[in-house]
Amino acid sequence: MPFSFELFDVDHGARRGHLETDHGGIDTPVFMPVGTLGTVKCLSSEDLREIGADIILANTYHLHLRPGEDIVAAGGGIQQFMSWHKPVLTDSGGYQVFSLADLNRVSDEGVEFQSHIDGSKHLFSPERVVDIQLDIGADIMMVLDQCVEYPCSRGRARDALERTTLWARRSKEHLIRRAEPNPYQQVLFGIVQGSVFHDLRKRSVEEITALDFPGYAIGGLSVGESKDELLDMTELVTEILPVEKPRYLMGVGFPEDLVEGVARGVDMFDCVMPTRNARNGTVFTSQGKVVLKNTVNKTDFGPIDPACGCDVCKNYSRSYLRHLFMAGELLGPRLATYHNLYFYLHLLAEIRQSIREGSFLLWRKEFYNKRDKQ
Amino acid sequence: MPFSFELFDVDHGARRGHLETDHGGIDTPVFMPVGTLGTVKCLSSEDLREIGADIILANTYHLHLRPGEDIVAAGGGIQQFMSWHKPVLTDSGGYQVFSLADLNRVSDEGVEFQSHIDGSKHLFSPERVVDIQLDIGADIMMVLDQCVEYPCSRGRARDALERTTLWARRSKEHLIRRAEPNPYQQVLFGIVQGSVFHDLRKRSVEEITALDFPGYAIGGLSVGESKDELLDMTELVTEILPVEKPRYLMGVGFPEDLVEGVARGVDMFDCVMPTRNARNGTVFTSQGKVVLKNTVNKTDFGPIDPACGCDVCKNYSRSYLRHLFMAGELLGPRLATYHNLYFYLHLLAEIRQSIREGSFLLWRKEFYNKRDKQ
Repeated sequence: MPFSFELFDVDHGARRGHLETDHGGIDTPVFMPVGTLGTVKCLSSEDLREIGADIILANTYHLHLRPGEDIVAAGGGIQQFMSWHKPVLTDSGGYQVFSLADLNRVSDEGVEFQSHIDGSKHLFSPERVVDIQLDIGADIMMVLDQCVEYPCSRGRARDALERTTLWARRSKEHLIRRAEPNPYQQVLFGIVQGSVFHDLRKRSVEEITALDFPGYAIGGLSVGESKDELLDMTELVTEILPVEKPRYLMGVGFPEDLVEGVARGVDMFDCVMPTRNARNGTVFTSQGKVVLKNTVNKTDFGPIDPACGCDVCKNYSRSYLRHLFMAGELLGPRLATYHNLYFYLHLLAEIRQSIREGSFLLWRKEFYNKRDKQ
Repeated sequence: MPFSFELFDVDHGARRGHLETDHGGIDTPVFMPVGTLGTVKCLSSEDLREIGADIILANTYHLHLRPGEDIVAAGGGIQQFMSWHKPVLTDSGGYQVFSLADLNRVSDEGVEFQSHIDGSKHLFSPERVVDIQLDIGADIMMVLDQCVEYPCSRGRARDALERTTLWARRSKEHLIRRAEPNPYQQVLFGIVQGSVFHDLRKRSVEEITALDFPGYAIGGLSVGESKDELLDMTELVTEILPVEKPRYLMGVGFPEDLVEGVARGVDMFDCVMPTRNARNGTVFTSQGKVVLKNTVNKTDFGPIDPACGCDVCKNYSRSYLRHLFMAGELLGPRLATYHNLYFYLHLLAEIRQSIREGSFLLWRKEFYNKRDKQ
């Protein structure tokens, strides 16, 4: 079945739809757990199925360095390699090159960088990054883009925007050239840049959509700008993106950011927030965040969130989880990760349900009410 | 149902039986995964049920220091606290006091020590250790014993033996005094000491069995002595222990040590071997040990052990597991632990089956044959 996106309902800007890929369908809006190195840290693929994940994200930069796309390809592609037989999206590695790698040097050709692990030299060109993602076997691939820091000058944002457009065109041309009989379809999404400049964001949307990708990401946000700027830029971009294509807000965010992203027409999200916080012992609940190590949890034999139906909340107490974190036991991060991702995925399921029922605004109000009670 | 042990078959010294506790039954010979701090490192209680564990071990010393037996008791006992609703055995903490704690000072009263975590001072007397284990809620408790290092002088071994007998008597008397209406039965096992001195081991068996415990452990082994000494001492002790009581060989060992222990009439084992090795990336297979990080596994897309039926061997390749260990991903230790414990538990299940069929010697021969092929 070819890649497709169907839009079912729109409720005050919030969209409910369905993405279809050769590795399965994805109900949107969707949150994609981050599986950087071909593993959502601490969780097995069976855990991910249990909590209802439909798609996960893996990182091109990290998989290129370890174990290398050749190993992943020889292992049958990322889905087979990690025993996750559902859709996978890979980022382009651009964000990691600009934030993690040593000595990155960008030109129109691409970006040269040194591995943050062993200092080895690499070049990511738009074409090379498509090749790597084809080898990894992602169902959804991202074009190489140039991310800029925040704040950044208008001139620098414009240069990065122009390069991102140039790279997007070359990525698409390369994918067409590479087109070959494939056991399953691998599609390529474009990325909108432009920092927090309204006219640059608008121009980027125009240039990237002119290239006609099957989906569009909003990049360069969640890099230090204010919440208002994040939401303004998101709204500005989604209003002019083609209605019939999925929109993916990269690297966002807190539960409330997802709610507000959906309210502005976003269909896809990814973020390390639930997983990274879990590993530090911070868990999300319907009433807000809980720091498990806090003394108050020492004798709290209730679950993380009485309103949560996940296996961790059914079986383990805050007191036990606090003990695991205090003792540095690996089961702590694992159980907290399981809960946090369940919480995020369940939140999105609730949102989809509310959009279907035309009650998204009411649901959103209730979402904030619960938190205010804390 | 009161604690009981039933012996079904004896096949060339190997015994097959069944232990009954208020938290469930245990087929013997049995391997007990070690859950030091109320968690078998990396695994959930659900995992332990999946791999067929009937009983786990927890450490009195560690739980006393973190989170404290008061917290475990307030949480409903160790089974409820860790959501493991099957039998738990706690050691006495003696071994940890003598090996881990700073500045331990032993007298007939007990052993004073400083926590290896924060240097706080504690006293473990025989009575106190029974109280702590009652609070933790173990189904099977162990008397405080004095472990000696290897090698040690005959005089030192004799003193430790005498103190161990003294402490065993006080432990039993204290448990009788403490006897009170309890939601479930908590029994106390005696421990045989005597280092590697034949006459001291014999004397220890006589003194400890005279106190009439419902089960007996062989302590003070697996501390540096040779394999021959380990097996000699085990055989010497099991030959004179009462036939109708379960025998527990503490802290042993490699798969072949379990096989040889069973051949010498041992019913219960515990060891950190499968779990600690797993966290370092060493896994056990029917053909011997495998070091996952070895380069040969880089492109080995087969399972850890084709003869193994565990979920890890069904779903994940050596190549993927190597990648997880090379990248320091927490899923690596988790999957390796799951496999290793499954391997150990399955090994004991095979042994029980062979004893039932009267083919233990044949099974043992085949066990060594498979490994020689490696």
